[in-house]
Amino acid sequence: MKIGFIGSGAVAQVLAAGFAEKGYEVKIGSRDTTKLADWLASAGENVSAGTFAEAAEFGDVVFLSVNFANTRSALELAGKERLNGKIVVDLSNPMDFSKGIPPAFAVSYGNSLGEQVQAALPDSHVVKAFNSMGADVMTSPIFGGETATHFIAGNDNGAKATVKRLAEEFGWEVLDAGDIGQSFFLEALASLWVNYSIKSGQREQAFKLLSR
Amino acid sequence: MKIGFIGSGAVAQVLAAGFAEKGYEVKIGSRDTTKLADWLASAGENVSAGTFAEAAEFGDVVFLSVNFANTRSALELAGKERLNGKIVVDLSNPMDFSKGIPPAFAVSYGNSLGEQVQAALPDSHVVKAFNSMGADVMTSPIFGGETATHFIAGNDNGAKATVKRLAEEFGWEVLDAGDIGQSFFLEALASLWVNYSIKSGQREQAFKLLSR
Repeated sequence: MKIGFIGSGAVAQVLAAGFAEKGYEVKIGSRDTTKLADWLASAGENVSAGTFAEAAEFGDVVFLSVNFANTRSALELAGKERLNGKIVVDLSNPMDFSKGIPPAFAVSYGNSLGEQVQAALPDSHVVKAFNSMGADVMTSPIFGGETATHFIAGNDNGAKATVKRLAEEFGWEVLDAGDIGQSFFLEALASLWVNYSIKSGQREQAFKLLSR
Repeated sequence: MKIGFIGSGAVAQVLAAGFAEKGYEVKIGSRDTTKLADWLASAGENVSAGTFAEAAEFGDVVFLSVNFANTRSALELAGKERLNGKIVVDLSNPMDFSKGIPPAFAVSYGNSLGEQVQAALPDSHVVKAFNSMGADVMTSPIFGGETATHFIAGNDNGAKATVKRLAEEFGWEVLDAGDIGQSFFLEALASLWVNYSIKSGQREQAFKLLSR
């Protein structure tokens, strides 16, 4: 299974390096790959870089990891037809920092980013995942003896099973929150954590759903 | 410190009995106290029942624990002036079950229930708390060796400190999410859990924010 990234920011870099280390072939897509030269040199032989279109073409699973305001243009550059039939993992969060902190939450119930991405890619299997935790813990969800919980959402059970296995490779406990409409709550969970992180100065945190 | 409850449902009963057991005097307010007779007989001598107005008058801290659709009428019955200067703990959640499950989320960012209650009670100190967990864990947040996390939000630091101490009496780890605007995310957190609980059938669950 090959993994593509549309987007090459901090989160994409952490995940790409993490998957490469697990043995996956990874292509990270950027509008400008020249800025990735140093990082690529350190990321190992399983990682290559290319355009958004090349990363979309390359991946069996494609991670959408761009600022939410750039989602539409990124998908146009990638070419939606290249994502047909594929699993698209949507990591985006609707945090609007334009009016200061804490960031505003820029979507409403029934119109979450996960749902917007699924609507833009009707022939892809969109899974909301890897959005509710920071880059510092994305590939290392163990806290002492505790394993953090990773909620995912999407309409296709097969796609969710694949994404679940990918997250489990890093050690996450993965819970299926439901269909893509539940993305709204995963996006809100990200804001709860980010806002608390800004306030507390604590970055290495993640949620665990305790049960008894 | 005396504690009043506007509302007498399952959550109010669990909390009222819990606070009474800790030695607080509690008055639980209902539109119809006759239905509470059996429960009152079992709840111990620290618990009494009365109207919404009597419970509001009684409490130094008053818990608002009614279905969100009934909040406005409940506050009218209680008499807003009786809550002036007091701490009002808002437990409500904007879950709309009218179109089936999972319930719809009935507020938008910037207009959460916590903010609506604070706007309705400008001379009270509203604290959003005790909303993001089920009645089954409300007064017992220990899971094996783990302590669950209780997020609270509100504009008044003194009021939040009081509510924090009340939650800590049951053993919660209490984190201050910020001003009352952060209620939106606490309400979304409740929906994430309730929707997952409906889907999984698991009721005794609560979130913990892991740190390292």
